[in-house]
Amino acid sequence: MLNYTRVENLSASDVARLRGRYEPLTESVRALIDATIRTEADDDAVAAAKAEIDSATARLRSSARDGSFGIQFGADGDPMPWGNAVIGVRNPTAPPLVISRRADGSVRSDFYLGAAFEGPPGHVHGGVAAKILDHVLGDAVSTPGIHRLTGTLTVRYLRLTPLGRLSAEARISYTEGVKTYAVGHIADDDGPTVEAQAVFIEPRWARE
Amino acid sequence: MLNYTRVENLSASDVARLRGRYEPLTESVRALIDATIRTEADDDAVAAAKAEIDSATARLRSSARDGSFGIQFGADGDPMPWGNAVIGVRNPTAPPLVISRRADGSVRSDFYLGAAFEGPPGHVHGGVAAKILDHVLGDAVSTPGIHRLTGTLTVRYLRLTPLGRLSAEARISYTEGVKTYAVGHIADDDGPTVEAQAVFIEPRWARE
Repeated sequence: MLNYTRVENLSASDVARLRGRYEPLTESVRALIDATIRTEADDDAVAAAKAEIDSATARLRSSARDGSFGIQFGADGDPMPWGNAVIGVRNPTAPPLVISRRADGSVRSDFYLGAAFEGPPGHVHGGVAAKILDHVLGDAVSTPGIHRLTGTLTVRYLRLTPLGRLSAEARISYTEGVKTYAVGHIADDDGPTVEAQAVFIEPRWARE
Repeated sequence: MLNYTRVENLSASDVARLRGRYEPLTESVRALIDATIRTEADDDAVAAAKAEIDSATARLRSSARDGSFGIQFGADGDPMPWGNAVIGVRNPTAPPLVISRRADGSVRSDFYLGAAFEGPPGHVHGGVAAKILDHVLGDAVSTPGIHRLTGTLTVRYLRLTPLGRLSAEARISYTEGVKTYAVGHIADDDGPTVEAQAVFIEPRWARE
């Protein structure tokens, strides 16, 4: 069984305060990641930057949880999937995606992928597209309190996806017992670049 | 057509020197990413860390290429896919995977996934598993000078993949004209957790 932790003494305003503390830090690390990939700085500048980075890491490690972030909930039920590799506001490797649900039940996200997400030169890594689609399709089939896990994901690459501003959409296609089928895609300004379909299964422990 | 850049005046020893300059920097940023997710430091410590990070970013940006890293080659043909989202030694969001080819033509990588790769609490994000499998299967079907792009990738989740030490393997299953089929999996100490199959297509521009 997965460990979803409810932090009993954390009010909604506490959750907002913690987000205000850690989200700008995470944004700074995202900018650093981009600079680390693109820099042409010389030995001295790189050594000076590395010393500052190592100092920052030591400060942050002076008080840190053991293991990964997990998924925590505040006392008021506010979910904090802040470490998540796709949507985590405290995970510098996440774009992060902000996913919104539309009136028809489908979900959509507009996002930007820069140098950190590259595969073929100037283009999104095919695996990154698969990563994003897995999450967006999973979001389309999920409702609060029901944790659905991917059974099978199929990704079809129509053409290369350029780095830059992109969008993703997904919706449920149909449900059959404990299985829910979803479809979706990633698009640039000229239309879809990658399509996906997936079947999600409500795990046995979540049905009991 | 994709832009693979050969840097004419970059010898093998220049490539080694550049790697020696930037790889330790990237490792430091990976440690910072982990600390950023797991820290419970207070406002003052976070503000001090953020100031150091922003200073490091400014130093690195003082001399930086436009756009993403791309794939460059030294004058001696040494490939530098250093910005790649899965294997890039200069991409802090890459684990990075080191993939080796065995005598039978199959490929294998042993790697570690920590807090930055989380989806379900304590476990690898399903999309991260798909991202890694896309790359490893792609590596299995590639030979120097032939750039194969994923056509369709199917990922089957057998059980949750725990964060920690993992391995991935892939091999060609068969080839049919311009299409090459590959299979592979990710495994922990107890065996496979995620399986994948994919078809790769040699793009038209690479056939001419």
